[in-house]
Amino acid sequence: MKAKVSLKQIERYPVYLNVLLSLRNSGINKVNSRLLSEALDVSEEQVRKDLQIVSPNSSKPGCCRDVNLLIEHLKEFLGYNKVNKAILVGVGHLGSALLSFKGFDDYGLEIIAGFDIDPSITGGFVNDKPIYSIFNLDNKIKELGVDVAIVATPREVTQEIVNKLINSGIKAIWNFVPIHLVVPENIIVENMDLARSLAVFFHKINKK
Amino acid sequence: MKAKVSLKQIERYPVYLNVLLSLRNSGINKVNSRLLSEALDVSEEQVRKDLQIVSPNSSKPGCCRDVNLLIEHLKEFLGYNKVNKAILVGVGHLGSALLSFKGFDDYGLEIIAGFDIDPSITGGFVNDKPIYSIFNLDNKIKELGVDVAIVATPREVTQEIVNKLINSGIKAIWNFVPIHLVVPENIIVENMDLARSLAVFFHKINKK
Repeated sequence: MKAKVSLKQIERYPVYLNVLLSLRNSGINKVNSRLLSEALDVSEEQVRKDLQIVSPNSSKPGCCRDVNLLIEHLKEFLGYNKVNKAILVGVGHLGSALLSFKGFDDYGLEIIAGFDIDPSITGGFVNDKPIYSIFNLDNKIKELGVDVAIVATPREVTQEIVNKLINSGIKAIWNFVPIHLVVPENIIVENMDLARSLAVFFHKINKK
Repeated sequence: MKAKVSLKQIERYPVYLNVLLSLRNSGINKVNSRLLSEALDVSEEQVRKDLQIVSPNSSKPGCCRDVNLLIEHLKEFLGYNKVNKAILVGVGHLGSALLSFKGFDDYGLEIIAGFDIDPSITGGFVNDKPIYSIFNLDNKIKELGVDVAIVATPREVTQEIVNKLINSGIKAIWNFVPIHLVVPENIIVENMDLARSLAVFFHKINKK
């Protein structure tokens, strides 16, 4: 598990997992590097390197790999068997969608509460998760004992809210707002940036 | 504009744009590579290479670049001054959020209609955009003359719907469903994959 892993590799592991789950659903229990290489559009050499890190014992030379074993090893590597608790700030359209998204369970993420400024939704629930007032952010974060936050607020207030989150003990932020967050070095930020994905999408379209 | 651009570069351009827009909002009109290098966490050399592609004439040697000119060149390069029309399939929580998202205008994307199977929402509107029945997909796509689709359907039906989209003339798919789509080679797919972003996020958290 201690081998050096690149971000590109990390990003491929959920894709491997999806392909393997599809194979298992189709009743396929053995897989070779060639099939995975075609499914992921990377070289067979790369497939072997990728899987060696996650599942060093699942291959026999000249043969194939066990689909179930690979699935288990990938889930373990990706932390899907653990539960990472998080709060969500900004219960607008996107925030509500994230609170209601069923798929996070599979990925080891549990959103335990939402925060918003709108009094018409605070005190209520979205998908059985309580929505608290943003004015109680500091107290509630300490009470809930979480250090992971998902941010889906309006752009103008995002940096200010991120500053408050950090002051309240949040250590890692999954940011859905298309702005560049300024945070201390010890704080983890992962941007889920629609603009970036769209830029790549349009570039592919315009290249044609 | 014809220089070879890597996907990593393409992904950085919206980030440059956000940083430059923030600078302009703060009244700053000149910027040098060093500042951008720090903001984006890439080398100054890389900043110069990146911007040379998009805006070859915006720098003076030993001096700085014009923020407004860079913003215009980045917007042009990213296609934000054009309007790319798209339909959206799957008006659930995520689909509704995407239909209601105000920011797409800035990115040159206009979602002109939604499609769903649920008769309680077809015939209605979300954010003033009409929601049509999935059973009219083929006719409506031809009527609307679009070839870009955003997919936010339940996982189980996604591949089937994607096949239908392609048969109806869709050429490019922005996929929000965490599955591996199988498409002909001439079809463009860009995955906006929560699982991949989350995998990177948890990896960064667990490394600490």
